[in-house]
Amino acid sequence: MDQLTGMSVFGWEFLGTALLLLFGNGVCAANGLRTSGARNTGWLIIAFGWGFAVFIGASVADVSGGHLNPAVTLGLAINGSTSWNLVPYYIAGQLLGAFTGAVLAWAAFKQLFDANNVDEAGNVTGDNAGTGGMFFTGPAHGNNFWNAVTEFIATYALLAFILFGPGGGELGPMKYLAVSFIVVGIGMSLGSPTGYAINPARDLGPRLAYAFALPIPGKGDANWGYAWVPIVAPLLGAAAAGLTAVVLL
Amino acid sequence: MDQLTGMSVFGWEFLGTALLLLFGNGVCAANGLRTSGARNTGWLIIAFGWGFAVFIGASVADVSGGHLNPAVTLGLAINGSTSWNLVPYYIAGQLLGAFTGAVLAWAAFKQLFDANNVDEAGNVTGDNAGTGGMFFTGPAHGNNFWNAVTEFIATYALLAFILFGPGGGELGPMKYLAVSFIVVGIGMSLGSPTGYAINPARDLGPRLAYAFALPIPGKGDANWGYAWVPIVAPLLGAAAAGLTAVVLL
Amino acid sequence: MDQLTGMSVFGWEFLGTALLLLFGNGVCAANGLRTSGARNTGWLIIAFGWGFAVFIGASVADVSGGHLNPAVTLGLAINGSTSWNLVPYYIAGQLLGAFTGAVLAWAAFKQLFDANNVDEAGNVTGDNAGTGGMFFTGPAHGNNFWNAVTEFIATYALLAFILFGPGGGELGPMKYLAVSFIVVGIGMSLGSPTGYAINPARDLGPRLAYAFALPIPGKGDANWGYAWVPIVAPLLGAAAAGLTAVVLL
Amino acid sequence: MDQLTGMSVFGWEFLGTALLLLFGNGVCAANGLRTSGARNTGWLIIAFGWGFAVFIGASVADVSGGHLNPAVTLGLAINGSTSWNLVPYYIAGQLLGAFTGAVLAWAAFKQLFDANNVDEAGNVTGDNAGTGGMFFTGPAHGNNFWNAVTEFIATYALLAFILFGPGGGELGPMKYLAVSFIVVGIGMSLGSPTGYAINPARDLGPRLAYAFALPIPGKGDANWGYAWVPIVAPLLGAAAAGLTAVVLL
Repeated sequence: MDQLTGMSVFGWEFLGTALLLLFGNGVCAANGLRTSGARNTGWLIIAFGWGFAVFIGASVADVSGGHLNPAVTLGLAINGSTSWNLVPYYIAGQLLGAFTGAVLAWAAFKQLFDANNVDEAGNVTGDNAGTGGMFFTGPAHGNNFWNAVTEFIATYALLAFILFGPGGGELGPMKYLAVSFIVVGIGMSLGSPTGYAINPARDLGPRLAYAFALPIPGKGDANWGYAWVPIVAPLLGAAAAGLTAVVLL
Repeated sequence: MDQLTGMSVFGWEFLGTALLLLFGNGVCAANGLRTSGARNTGWLIIAFGWGFAVFIGASVADVSGGHLNPAVTLGLAINGSTSWNLVPYYIAGQLLGAFTGAVLAWAAFKQLFDANNVDEAGNVTGDNAGTGGMFFTGPAHGNNFWNAVTEFIATYALLAFILFGPGGGELGPMKYLAVSFIVVGIGMSLGSPTGYAINPARDLGPRLAYAFALPIPGKGDANWGYAWVPIVAPLLGAAAAGLTAVVLL
Repeated sequence: MDQLTGMSVFGWEFLGTALLLLFGNGVCAANGLRTSGARNTGWLIIAFGWGFAVFIGASVADVSGGHLNPAVTLGLAINGSTSWNLVPYYIAGQLLGAFTGAVLAWAAFKQLFDANNVDEAGNVTGDNAGTGGMFFTGPAHGNNFWNAVTEFIATYALLAFILFGPGGGELGPMKYLAVSFIVVGIGMSLGSPTGYAINPARDLGPRLAYAFALPIPGKGDANWGYAWVPIVAPLLGAAAAGLTAVVLL
Repeated sequence: MDQLTGMSVFGWEFLGTALLLLFGNGVCAANGLRTSGARNTGWLIIAFGWGFAVFIGASVADVSGGHLNPAVTLGLAINGSTSWNLVPYYIAGQLLGAFTGAVLAWAAFKQLFDANNVDEAGNVTGDNAGTGGMFFTGPAHGNNFWNAVTEFIATYALLAFILFGPGGGELGPMKYLAVSFIVVGIGMSLGSPTGYAINPARDLGPRLAYAFALPIPGKGDANWGYAWVPIVAPLLGAAAAGLTAVVLL
């Protein structure tokens, strides 16, 4: 990895994370918006859709290792696989990419977001107040300690696979598919309590985009009171997994 | 690729694209026709079905690289991976194959198309007027600029995976499975606004077949007013991705 | 393949095809029986379930090439990949295995088949008259020429993948997974008109078991009038694909 | 495998089986709890979720071979692939891991378990009496001989794939994905009669956790009268498959 420059890391992580959020926010919009043919398909399309989002994003960002996630970068830095000098470039690319991906997802569904705000008779319904949940995560219940526990456990599991499972060299170019399947599994098994951010950039970037950039008529607020949970808990989970790797391996 | 002759390209792309549309139009018929046991399965079967359609078609067309899509051919020609001399053979095989695949899908569902036009009591219902949507794409909303944006973004993402992701040589014979999963992801995440043509041949071939060849009783019109969007926007998206590859790689 | 003995072929094809039908008939029972927790899951579980049935059966029968299907054996014999001398052993193992797998599927669901015949109040409902459809295939409509067309097309596609796609040596041990995904795709895209036998043994073995062996209370008839279609049409489709391979490759 | 120490086996099997149950019990909770966004997704999410649970757990426990299951360990010991001396370490790690994974799954869904006991108006509903089924298996019908037959058949099939299918060395690091797909198939095809334990540790560990450790308000009993079936029948099925391998291979 010593040949990686900061700008290369920034660029590829930007592109990969933009694709991650384009697809991830896209599947949430497809499942939620009133005039989408995929409306109410349910949790299976959410879980599979985010998995394929990871697959395309990580594959395209192969040059920089396809992290797409500050928690993954942190775990690999603690583990020694990623240079601490590059960590800021990783995180900057991931955050800006996540913001951009959210904007692209909005653009792909622009007409459907506009139509979601009115019923078939043309009356404003206020339904767009709930569109924030298509961009950033939110919990089923209000106790943020337990919400953080869920995000901690789910992120620890993701990093356990990356750090302890068969390695990148061994899995070869299918490694991103393997990680994608793990993300599908996390979505199915651990996703519903908190919406499984397991990635600070995936949550914060679209939250910023929703709050400050997206021209969605009648949109709701960005629920900033919850925003720290999907930042802090995934980083703690990844750090714990990284330290486990340092101790065990 | 210099050993590829134009006729070989034409033949394999014809066969592969015929399989793509046989399976792709088939899953739409299976999900939509009144007497199909798979009726109303929903968006998951559409997204997975088109993915497996790509997998079989591209695998069978392995000799010619399994493009099946003028947008893919264009992106790879800009990138330098495919000779411009062969591009006409690719596109001709793809278009004729797509037309033929639509006819085969109709043949496989012939009795169900006939039965779809009448209710259980034998009265003509006019339901076959909507069967065009099983063959060619149509948008959820009427603004074709934004529909083109959606097709542009989705095709750019497809080509980004093909051009920037782990290459064919590295992925080996599983590369078509990887592309198939990307197509499943595009269907889940970006498919519902426009029906995700992301491929001019996939849309135009079956549209021509529906308009001029298929003997479906009570069939509707071919919606020619929309036909340019799934031709122009995917080609622009692929060209943009190809030029990105030329600049970046 | 010259080291394969007839008895080895018979034994492995028997075991593999028994697993194929145990899983394939099992998923139909799981989806159809009144007291099954998976009841009415729908076409997705049918299509994926039969795919995984092929995966386990073919993988376990790796020694004999994992045909599990007289149509596959015929196509590979025409192609020259399988010795004509071994064909009778293949088909005998496949047929007896399919019969046995149907019996095992019944055994795994024995209590649910018994309960399916009565409602919750204990009254006999006659619902078991429809259980034949969990073992053998049946068409949505009555014209057997067009039903044969559907089975011909679907089997031709299966053989096209096996004969023209990336070969067994190239795909390595994941080749059975690839074939399984093709079978999932056939189920999704071409399955509903006829129940996609695409395999004479898969249909005839369980039909014989249902007619003569399974002690299901109130079971229906074996619909022998349709039985020739899923035998003849898949063999013709496979022969056509095999001859295409001889001519083209 | 002669370099494996008992403590290494114990540790990796503990970690892998904890992940298996975290994900497996998690998907059951996600599908069943009143305030879960994934509620009532149905049998597809159960079958796929348990498959991905096996994938993450077995991959992380790669050092010890990723058994996660006393039945797998028994089959491989009979087959000679695993040393009998290590079997107690395998089983101890698996049981303790399964117990721990159940506790982690509860922690990830803590708020949802609490909310499941009351309706939206805050009245206690008694619905938590049924939460045992999210942790341990239970049959659809009461005849435990036939329930044991189902578990025997399903476990025999699992071991047949592991023992007769393409081997670990040949499948490489994707072997755990292959086994996961088999487990998805078992869930779809053979899962509904008994809940497909096919693994004594997967059933007994969470049953103990539910009975003695989990602070779920209003929880039900642990149905100890059934507990022997998912212990005895999988071990017998695995032993039978192991002996088949000794005789045949």
